[in-house]
Amino acid sequence: MADNNVATNETDRLIASNKVEGTAVYDRDGNKLGSVYNFMVDKRSGKVEYAVMSFGGFLGMGEDYHPLPWDQLTYDTDQGGYVVNLSREQLEGGPHYSAGNEPTFDRAYGQQVYGYYGSSYNY
Amino acid sequence: MADNNVATNETDRLIASNKVEGTAVYDRDGNKLGSVYNFMVDKRSGKVEYAVMSFGGFLGMGEDYHPLPWDQLTYDTDQGGYVVNLSREQLEGGPHYSAGNEPTFDRAYGQQVYGYYGSSYNY
Repeated sequence: MADNNVATNETDRLIASNKVEGTAVYDRDGNKLGSVYNFMVDKRSGKVEYAVMSFGGFLGMGEDYHPLPWDQLTYDTDQGGYVVNLSREQLEGGPHYSAGNEPTFDRAYGQQVYGYYGSSYNY
Repeated sequence: MADNNVATNETDRLIASNKVEGTAVYDRDGNKLGSVYNFMVDKRSGKVEYAVMSFGGFLGMGEDYHPLPWDQLTYDTDQGGYVVNLSREQLEGGPHYSAGNEPTFDRAYGQQVYGYYGSSYNY
């Protein structure tokens, strides 16, 4: 996919799934915190429940996955990435898992994740 | 991404974006129609507005992109792919575009796409 092919990937309202994946995530001060690994979609409703950030690790080894409520991410066209209103410490302290140790993503987990970030869980 | 790593990619309710992309799409009789290219997400609401099927072409050349209402796709664990209740002819006749000729994905386009497939457009 050509990243400069904006029309395929992004409109004023919509963004393409394959553009979101791999996009950098910054804090408010422009420090890179990690990147978007993927996002988890409700099969029936088509609603994105989590954007999963990959965080830490090196070249894909030892990475941790941090699910965030979708509404925590704001796309910043200047930075060409997402900005979260969170510090590295807040992210580090949030619910996360390593590859092979994934949670079940049930509603109790959803309440835990959304609760941690102060978002209301309506899924 | 390891496709056999089910827990990362899929739960009873949720499916990972990077698992959806590239997944085959079949008709009711099990004939492969194409595959999911990506999907378009509303940046604010996090709602998937279209699953975009790639259709026709060969090795990525001459492909057409057919946006479908998300609710047209049903995941079939037996087939390991999506099933649509549509014939090849219905798909061929639906709204589509080629690379470099993307629509603006505005609301008029949404009504056209959803109308074609008999889904109601509530975005």
